[in-house]
Amino acid sequence: MITHPSFTVEPWCLRESELNLDLIAQSESVFALSNGHIGWRGNLDEGEPHGLPGAYLNGVFERHPLPYAEAGYGYPESGQTMINITDGKIIRLLVDDHPCDLRYGRLLEHERVLDFRTGVLSRTARWVSPGGRTVRITSRRLVSFTQRAVAAIVYEVEPEDGPATVAVQSELVANEQLPSLQGDPRVAAAIESPLTPEESFAQGTRLRLLHCTDRSALRVGAAADHLVEGPDSTRWTAQSEPDVSRLTVTADLTPGQPLRLFKFVAYGWSGERSQSAVRDQVDGAVAAAVSAGWDGLVADQRTYLDEFWAGADVEVEGDAQIQQAVRFALFHVLQAAARGENRAIPAKGLTGTGYDGHSFWDTESYVMPVLTFTAPEAVASALRWRHRMLPAARERARELNLAGAMFPWRTIDGSESSAYWPAGTAAFHINADIAMAAVRYVLVTGDEEFERNEGLDLLVDTARLWRRLGHHDADGVFHIDGVTGPDEYSAIARDNLYTNLMARQNLRAAADAAARHPDRAEELGVDDEETAGWREAAARMALPYNETLGVHEQSAGFTTFQHWDFDATPPENYPLLLHYPYFDLYRKQVVKQADVVLAMLECPYAFTDDEKVRNFAYYEALTVRDSSLSACCQAVLAAETGHLRLAYAYLTEAALMDLDDLEHNTRDGLHIASLAGTWLALVGGFGGLRRHLDEEGKPGLLGFAPRLPEALSRIAFTVQTRGQRLKVDIERDRARYRLVEGEPLTVLHFGQPVTVTVDKPVDREVTPCSARPEPQQPHGRRPEGLPSEEEPHEETQD
Amino acid sequence: MITHPSFTVEPWCLRESELNLDLIAQSESVFALSNGHIGWRGNLDEGEPHGLPGAYLNGVFERHPLPYAEAGYGYPESGQTMINITDGKIIRLLVDDHPCDLRYGRLLEHERVLDFRTGVLSRTARWVSPGGRTVRITSRRLVSFTQRAVAAIVYEVEPEDGPATVAVQSELVANEQLPSLQGDPRVAAAIESPLTPEESFAQGTRLRLLHCTDRSALRVGAAADHLVEGPDSTRWTAQSEPDVSRLTVTADLTPGQPLRLFKFVAYGWSGERSQSAVRDQVDGAVAAAVSAGWDGLVADQRTYLDEFWAGADVEVEGDAQIQQAVRFALFHVLQAAARGENRAIPAKGLTGTGYDGHSFWDTESYVMPVLTFTAPEAVASALRWRHRMLPAARERARELNLAGAMFPWRTIDGSESSAYWPAGTAAFHINADIAMAAVRYVLVTGDEEFERNEGLDLLVDTARLWRRLGHHDADGVFHIDGVTGPDEYSAIARDNLYTNLMARQNLRAAADAAARHPDRAEELGVDDEETAGWREAAARMALPYNETLGVHEQSAGFTTFQHWDFDATPPENYPLLLHYPYFDLYRKQVVKQADVVLAMLECPYAFTDDEKVRNFAYYEALTVRDSSLSACCQAVLAAETGHLRLAYAYLTEAALMDLDDLEHNTRDGLHIASLAGTWLALVGGFGGLRRHLDEEGKPGLLGFAPRLPEALSRIAFTVQTRGQRLKVDIERDRARYRLVEGEPLTVLHFGQPVTVTVDKPVDREVTPCSARPEPQQPHGRRPEGLPSEEEPHEETQD
Repeated sequence: MITHPSFTVEPWCLRESELNLDLIAQSESVFALSNGHIGWRGNLDEGEPHGLPGAYLNGVFERHPLPYAEAGYGYPESGQTMINITDGKIIRLLVDDHPCDLRYGRLLEHERVLDFRTGVLSRTARWVSPGGRTVRITSRRLVSFTQRAVAAIVYEVEPEDGPATVAVQSELVANEQLPSLQGDPRVAAAIESPLTPEESFAQGTRLRLLHCTDRSALRVGAAADHLVEGPDSTRWTAQSEPDVSRLTVTADLTPGQPLRLFKFVAYGWSGERSQSAVRDQVDGAVAAAVSAGWDGLVADQRTYLDEFWAGADVEVEGDAQIQQAVRFALFHVLQAAARGENRAIPAKGLTGTGYDGHSFWDTESYVMPVLTFTAPEAVASALRWRHRMLPAARERARELNLAGAMFPWRTIDGSESSAYWPAGTAAFHINADIAMAAVRYVLVTGDEEFERNEGLDLLVDTARLWRRLGHHDADGVFHIDGVTGPDEYSAIARDNLYTNLMARQNLRAAADAAARHPDRAEELGVDDEETAGWREAAARMALPYNETLGVHEQSAGFTTFQHWDFDATPPENYPLLLHYPYFDLYRKQVVKQADVVLAMLECPYAFTDDEKVRNFAYYEALTVRDSSLSACCQAVLAAETGHLRLAYAYLTEAALMDLDDLEHNTRDGLHIASLAGTWLALVGGFGGLRRHLDEEGKPGLLGFAPRLPEALSRIAFTVQTRGQRLKVDIERDRARYRLVEGEPLTVLHFGQPVTVTVDKPVDREVTPCSARPEPQQPHGRRPEGLPSEEEPHEETQD
Repeated sequence: MITHPSFTVEPWCLRESELNLDLIAQSESVFALSNGHIGWRGNLDEGEPHGLPGAYLNGVFERHPLPYAEAGYGYPESGQTMINITDGKIIRLLVDDHPCDLRYGRLLEHERVLDFRTGVLSRTARWVSPGGRTVRITSRRLVSFTQRAVAAIVYEVEPEDGPATVAVQSELVANEQLPSLQGDPRVAAAIESPLTPEESFAQGTRLRLLHCTDRSALRVGAAADHLVEGPDSTRWTAQSEPDVSRLTVTADLTPGQPLRLFKFVAYGWSGERSQSAVRDQVDGAVAAAVSAGWDGLVADQRTYLDEFWAGADVEVEGDAQIQQAVRFALFHVLQAAARGENRAIPAKGLTGTGYDGHSFWDTESYVMPVLTFTAPEAVASALRWRHRMLPAARERARELNLAGAMFPWRTIDGSESSAYWPAGTAAFHINADIAMAAVRYVLVTGDEEFERNEGLDLLVDTARLWRRLGHHDADGVFHIDGVTGPDEYSAIARDNLYTNLMARQNLRAAADAAARHPDRAEELGVDDEETAGWREAAARMALPYNETLGVHEQSAGFTTFQHWDFDATPPENYPLLLHYPYFDLYRKQVVKQADVVLAMLECPYAFTDDEKVRNFAYYEALTVRDSSLSACCQAVLAAETGHLRLAYAYLTEAALMDLDDLEHNTRDGLHIASLAGTWLALVGGFGGLRRHLDEEGKPGLLGFAPRLPEALSRIAFTVQTRGQRLKVDIERDRARYRLVEGEPLTVLHFGQPVTVTVDKPVDREVTPCSARPEPQQPHGRRPEGLPSEEEPHEETQD
């Protein structure tokens, strides 16, 4: 673990009190600003030193060939990678002709603060130039939630100890030189100089660059305008070249007489619109930003975030670090999704180029559950992107001898970009994950228009996929063979429990939705024969279970595989996939990440309480958490099965994944799904929130099963459902349900209905859970914060 | 099917009566000459036109990087490919300054004959030059079986209709320009200009070139010397450049006055020896060839082949095409292996660059069974190559978290070159195939020295691999999970029947061999505990069987998979792997090639007769024969289960695989294993030859179960075992066993012992087998020569 001693623990912000050049790439990720459309990494204003410069637009990518030493039918030939677009962040500074580069001179003070309530990244630096002049630099930066195409910066410089002549260069830069990242095979090579210049402009205080990508043929425009405040000596000129457009401001400054530059940047891109259309689009957006002004943008940002926090905040008492982490997490989850507007939510948001900027299943399975309760319109938007990609998914299904639609494992533009089919194409569960995200969204929000216009299409095409993918055996049992579940240390198995349970939901939900919208269903060619086939497949779905052990099998036969030899696995051999071949991982009992555990989270009705306890303990002993997607799910099920101390340890792991860089790759961008998992662990784990279809596919009530770990004295969170806003406030021995807004609402408290109205909060007792031996983890894989393996494992919970 | 009307059917040769430029690449493969060390494709003497120029040395290759869009632990980083080395075949001709290129001028006559008894490829051409002069060109070519480093050519040209000035250029050429082959992903790209010049020499009639490969760092030497016979006007000069060394002979010829050139070529290569050592080696070899002279080399070649045919010939009456095909097959199998001398036998021999010149498991499982009975010293040689590669195989096992030795799926130098692990690394059966080839060799030849010196090492290290790869489950059953069997349309399965049966043999044979050689076993660290573990694993080996269907499962659960929809598969979609994704093939009941059928061939004792009948019929209905390795095995089991007409159809398919280019890739080289399969189908199928360890691993007797299909009136074949030479002569209703040489021998005739001595042939009755419905093939995959699917399938056998 890389500790980051310069982060202070504060409830509403992330503060870095000194600059640590060794951790600069990580800090660029955690200080990244985004609104889901534009992403700016937390690079220093001066551009350098940097870990990875990054400015991104959701959906802007370049293609590259995917090489295969031995190719096969249906392998995607072309991959996609998110590219670093025109960088509008850069404001270079010269002090008496010395470039301000913090690697030189002397840095007296450097602080950065990301404020989760204002959405502004602030920076203060005091720097002594190599020439001996001390200057104070402050900047504030935002990517606007209200003006989707806009980002803005205020940059101020002032000498402290005598006069200084300064030059400030505010730039738009395309094709920035990128450092090459190596080591982890999962980090794909960045694409060099992806932008071909089309137009370059600089006049007065206005800058503009238009570029086009070669293979993906996307046009990217960036424009900027400025306001300059300074002494009379202040002068400026604007210049442009194909890859840079620059405003240079010079001034002679004295202490007390700062130079202040307001920079308004706008972005636009299109795969279809002309040069002049994109030019006008970005100029127009800049003009709107100038018109709002910096203060206006800041005020709007605060209003937007106030509204978000009112419906999404989680209060945590007893652990200030978790309090900070969950707000950090929610802030970044919001940033990844807020204004995507029918675009994807990538695995790293727009905070870095990890996973090539691709979106995976964890958007639907980890990020959307949080957003559904806290920012539901962002869920509808991201699901509309999936809906827009249906034609490509249908084509992919046909290519692979299947029916319906088959969504890509990893993608930016909707076409498959995974070059390893056992962990890509074969991971069919993504199709149910998408379908059930749509079902969850409709269930929680009541957005029937969405179900009718988009949801039904998603459900029908995925149901058709499952029906064709699986088959009834001689006894009528429905099997799904040759698929890979969430656990990437198994592959190409029969009847992955998670996949089959999700497919079962998917098939039933499709049949039910078709019945609710018969006219739309008829348009899609769905008839009673077809829905009967879906229901029959669902009813006869194989759910592997080992009677002797009394546990569900991750897939058929899994519990009879050889156990991984954890005792012979040294700590440095984790993550295992970098030290052992797939074939060995696949054929043994070793679990990378929650799989049966995730099934119990997604389909709780399919398991008795005792089964949950036994399953959790069984898989706990096999799960090495080599994926950032695991700890949060384990936290939820640990809490449900009464292992609160363990749940708390997993909550902590999920919460600190990026703040403590637990997987050593935060430099490449944040783990948005694991951040979302912080909320899941708190709200789903200690709040016990569940909202699912029941075994027959009927909607149940919103349920809670609150229970705190010893370390926490209180948590409180707000969730939104169908125009209602419910605050759940949990202390050790009671939970208070308070309706903040909306019609009276009935929820379940440990299965018992509780009706709340706006006037009347309701308190309910929380009873301690019974002591139970804490399950074992694989040797050496015990989470931080628990007694060591040698100590007795009796649960200390009272 | 590409028919080749210009091949005539003759018992002892392959004759092409005209030149078909569309089929030139195929003819280059079928007319290839080799002794297992040197390989010369049947290119025209003039070099062009050509399909693929090719001169190869067994073991000479270049490395190339293996690209992965998503790499994984244990993936080989570097591949190997056999390279086209210095071409010594080329003899260019100019007639009155017109280059002799058969694409120009007019070809009056062109005949090529490959004589299986002399081992000489003869050519006669009558060509009218663009200038109008008719010349007669004859050449004969051999790659010597007796002088391993030597090949030789006699080239003669004579004008027929008037005087002509001719120039003949006899060359050594390195880095020939190669055509690029495309289309089939299995054909890897050839490597351009792989040879770096080291030395170039030409003086008098002597030529020499020395080159080195870049990455594999192998030194390749070629030398030539010539005898020239011509009229007084004959002159010659020698010249050399880095990549070409050339003797140019000019003469003024008249009808009746030919120019004749004898060319003796020698090759040598080494990864260790110096330039001067290799230089001396090739010069010495040329001198020896010159000393023997053309006639001497031809006489030695004939003697060598007479001896081979005396111990290996198969006579076939009733089908002249099969008679020719089996001799063509035996000739090429011999060529691939004869003088390899501790090198591999590649899948294509040295006839082309198909499969990159790699060796696979089919060498041990298809080629070696034939050679063990017909040229056993070649088997010992090829197994010694495997033995030499043990250190690399041990290292690979360690890399993959295994024990013992793990042989590469495809290789030239002993390191893994397979870039697709589900059909490479996971195909563990190759290790048992190698081990059991050694067991078979010792069993048939009685070569105990080999067992002691090499066989035991191979057995012990593979047994250790199996013991570590598999595991006992809670009931004590030994499972081998996550492996791929011979059928490449399944992968990563539990308990592949073939693999488990072979592993069981392997484990027992290792324990037995260790007991026979306790001192050597001790050296290898084998103790009684270890062999007890091997025997226990063997005794408890899982052998999947479906009780309801009464058939063995190719792997656990296979018979419960969905059936492939053959009716919906159009003929143009074969081979399936080019039209459907692996994941779909893997999870359905569809079989590329013999797998359970091969298990029944290799381990006949493990099945009752009824099981064989049921298994054969069951898998027959699923097997599409998209591999050239299938038909011959199906022929053997079809014969054993009484389907003689079907067996004959499969024999024909195996026999004509290359002569009729059934898989459309004979241009890349011959299918040596399928050629060997012709012998297996005849001798193993209609002769019923079996020689295996029994269920307990004890050697049984050599057994026969002769039975002819209606189309054949007689087959006779000779097999060698432990210094004995047995001729088995089969007619419709009797089999005659005649000992040609050696001590009295007891064999089994349909399970009944028959003792033969040199003086006394023994006749035994052959009773017709009972009629049985002929099994069905998948729709559209019925072999040629049978009534169509619609007709009744009652066996017509009397």
